[in-house]
Amino acid sequence: MDALGNLDDLDTPCVLVDLDQAEVNIVRHQAYLASHGIAARPHIKTHKTVELARAQIAAGAVGLTCQKLGEAEVMAAAGFTDILLTYNIVGARKLARLKALNAHIRVGVVADSAAVVEGLATAGFSDPARPLRVLVECDTGARRCGVADPAAAAALARRIQAAPGLSFGGLMTYPPNGGTAAVQAFMGDARALLDAAGLPCPTITSGGSPDMWRAHEAPVITEYRAGTYIYNDRSLVERGVCSWSDCALCVLATVVSVPAADRAVIDAGSKVLTTDPMGLTGHGHVMGRSDLAIDRLSEEHGCVQAMGGSVGLSVGQRLRIVPNHACVVSNMVDRAVALRNGVPVGELAIAARGRVT
Amino acid sequence: MDALGNLDDLDTPCVLVDLDQAEVNIVRHQAYLASHGIAARPHIKTHKTVELARAQIAAGAVGLTCQKLGEAEVMAAAGFTDILLTYNIVGARKLARLKALNAHIRVGVVADSAAVVEGLATAGFSDPARPLRVLVECDTGARRCGVADPAAAAALARRIQAAPGLSFGGLMTYPPNGGTAAVQAFMGDARALLDAAGLPCPTITSGGSPDMWRAHEAPVITEYRAGTYIYNDRSLVERGVCSWSDCALCVLATVVSVPAADRAVIDAGSKVLTTDPMGLTGHGHVMGRSDLAIDRLSEEHGCVQAMGGSVGLSVGQRLRIVPNHACVVSNMVDRAVALRNGVPVGELAIAARGRVT
Repeated sequence: MDALGNLDDLDTPCVLVDLDQAEVNIVRHQAYLASHGIAARPHIKTHKTVELARAQIAAGAVGLTCQKLGEAEVMAAAGFTDILLTYNIVGARKLARLKALNAHIRVGVVADSAAVVEGLATAGFSDPARPLRVLVECDTGARRCGVADPAAAAALARRIQAAPGLSFGGLMTYPPNGGTAAVQAFMGDARALLDAAGLPCPTITSGGSPDMWRAHEAPVITEYRAGTYIYNDRSLVERGVCSWSDCALCVLATVVSVPAADRAVIDAGSKVLTTDPMGLTGHGHVMGRSDLAIDRLSEEHGCVQAMGGSVGLSVGQRLRIVPNHACVVSNMVDRAVALRNGVPVGELAIAARGRVT
Repeated sequence: MDALGNLDDLDTPCVLVDLDQAEVNIVRHQAYLASHGIAARPHIKTHKTVELARAQIAAGAVGLTCQKLGEAEVMAAAGFTDILLTYNIVGARKLARLKALNAHIRVGVVADSAAVVEGLATAGFSDPARPLRVLVECDTGARRCGVADPAAAAALARRIQAAPGLSFGGLMTYPPNGGTAAVQAFMGDARALLDAAGLPCPTITSGGSPDMWRAHEAPVITEYRAGTYIYNDRSLVERGVCSWSDCALCVLATVVSVPAADRAVIDAGSKVLTTDPMGLTGHGHVMGRSDLAIDRLSEEHGCVQAMGGSVGLSVGQRLRIVPNHACVVSNMVDRAVALRNGVPVGELAIAARGRVT
């Protein structure tokens, strides 16, 4: 990473990543999980960079989590050897790519139906030394993917274990926020059913940054997948999970218009901040100016409204904005600006950006 | 563009662009504007491709509209010679890039304050043969950028004309939906003030696809900038501007889970469909299935809910989804799949994707 000069020279909008703070965030959560005997398998969707995935492994993570094959392919090409794909892999093209990946590194995937397991089985993971590790995805209340109850989880586990080329790898869930008790109840029951059936369950993995400090409240789990924790964001601050000073990613924007005393327009719109609401009002937090709201975004404009009083901004002035959701912001840019000691030290390639398949 | 085989072979999620329909959309709106003596200057933000910009010029457009310098740089490098940047250009780096662009092609920019004009003037557009064309951006009700009233527009026009290296290029607005009458009123008054001051006003330009068939209701305008019209989208269909069969862009997605009788999960989430609400409920229209709603998105999952009855989908099944907002979807992928006669014929490079500065 080449030096980039000072912050004032950066063209805006741009995404700033404070590497010092990101490392603090990595180490702190790793230490928490280790103190409870829980393995860390961080989700790279938040940063999508090789450099920060390396920092996560160096801190003690047992492997990486990816959501899409394309992300896993980028990470495998960069040398990572243990990746869990928390996604149902469906379709001939994807199955061929998964086979290629499993031939070189240790891969795990999930399944939540017989149809998905059947697809994986027919793909022919025929090397007996490299069966495909398949975990059962469980719906512990988030109502997205996942089998509905522990009995269905145990039944699908048996089906996986019986399928040619597949090995049952455990149980996986992405819980709803505040769902630790639900995880414990579901996974405890499922684990008991597996034990009764004599089926070993190597891993029980949960995730989510909103409950990242409550992972130990579901002692049945053996592994935790957090993503956003590396950067944090407005949604986590507003939920009380962290503070503004814990946020390692922000968007640097320039005021381009002050059309009225109580409002201004910045050059960061939905193409950088995204419209992801995350249950919040407004589109990000202007650092140091809690009296301002980013109340409307178009693609290239952000409208900043003073909530009482004057907006107090002038054309050319720069603002730092902590986005509602850090993960989706990483996906909007090819490169972020890396900071050390608050100073730009280079560009961070978002290598897995836009890998949607 | 190389042939890609048939639709069933495509890996999903992917963005499909029906080139035949896009060309129909281009020609139809061009003919409408021509019949009213209004010049077309289409906004490339919707497609961000060189190929479709060429089709727009070939159909009779007088030039292109871009929102950001980075988009204009891509289009200038591809050979386009007349670009209007409907944005306040602020900051030393951007001004240097603007100077480089203006040295090679005909560029127009906008300004809505003395501060922006002063920045442009101090950048030193010193070649008397190539002054920078600057239009005054006017707020006709959208409450984004723009001077607030016709008197302010005329005053800023005089300031532009007096500034070294700048030439007053006319008046520009991005009106609110249904704002044709407001455009006529504001621009008519501003034009009269300019006439009284003896200041020629070469162009009065308005835009927006929602009112694209009502451009003639503001006869004061000389030029129209539509963007979304080339693809259309759910927001325009829901507003009655076009029909589903006019939509040239959709997302092809695969069902990856059917966790309950009344809901399913597809592999297209906010990383492709985006969370842009456009004032609508839900995140896109499933073609042929108006009984389904895409009611929740996470980054890589779309949750499909049956609105009464069964979802009637199975794992592996494919759906075509017309997004709420086409422009933001183009920006999520590096390439789209181009269709002719409904068959994939190649990839369309989204050359100006992610050009945020």
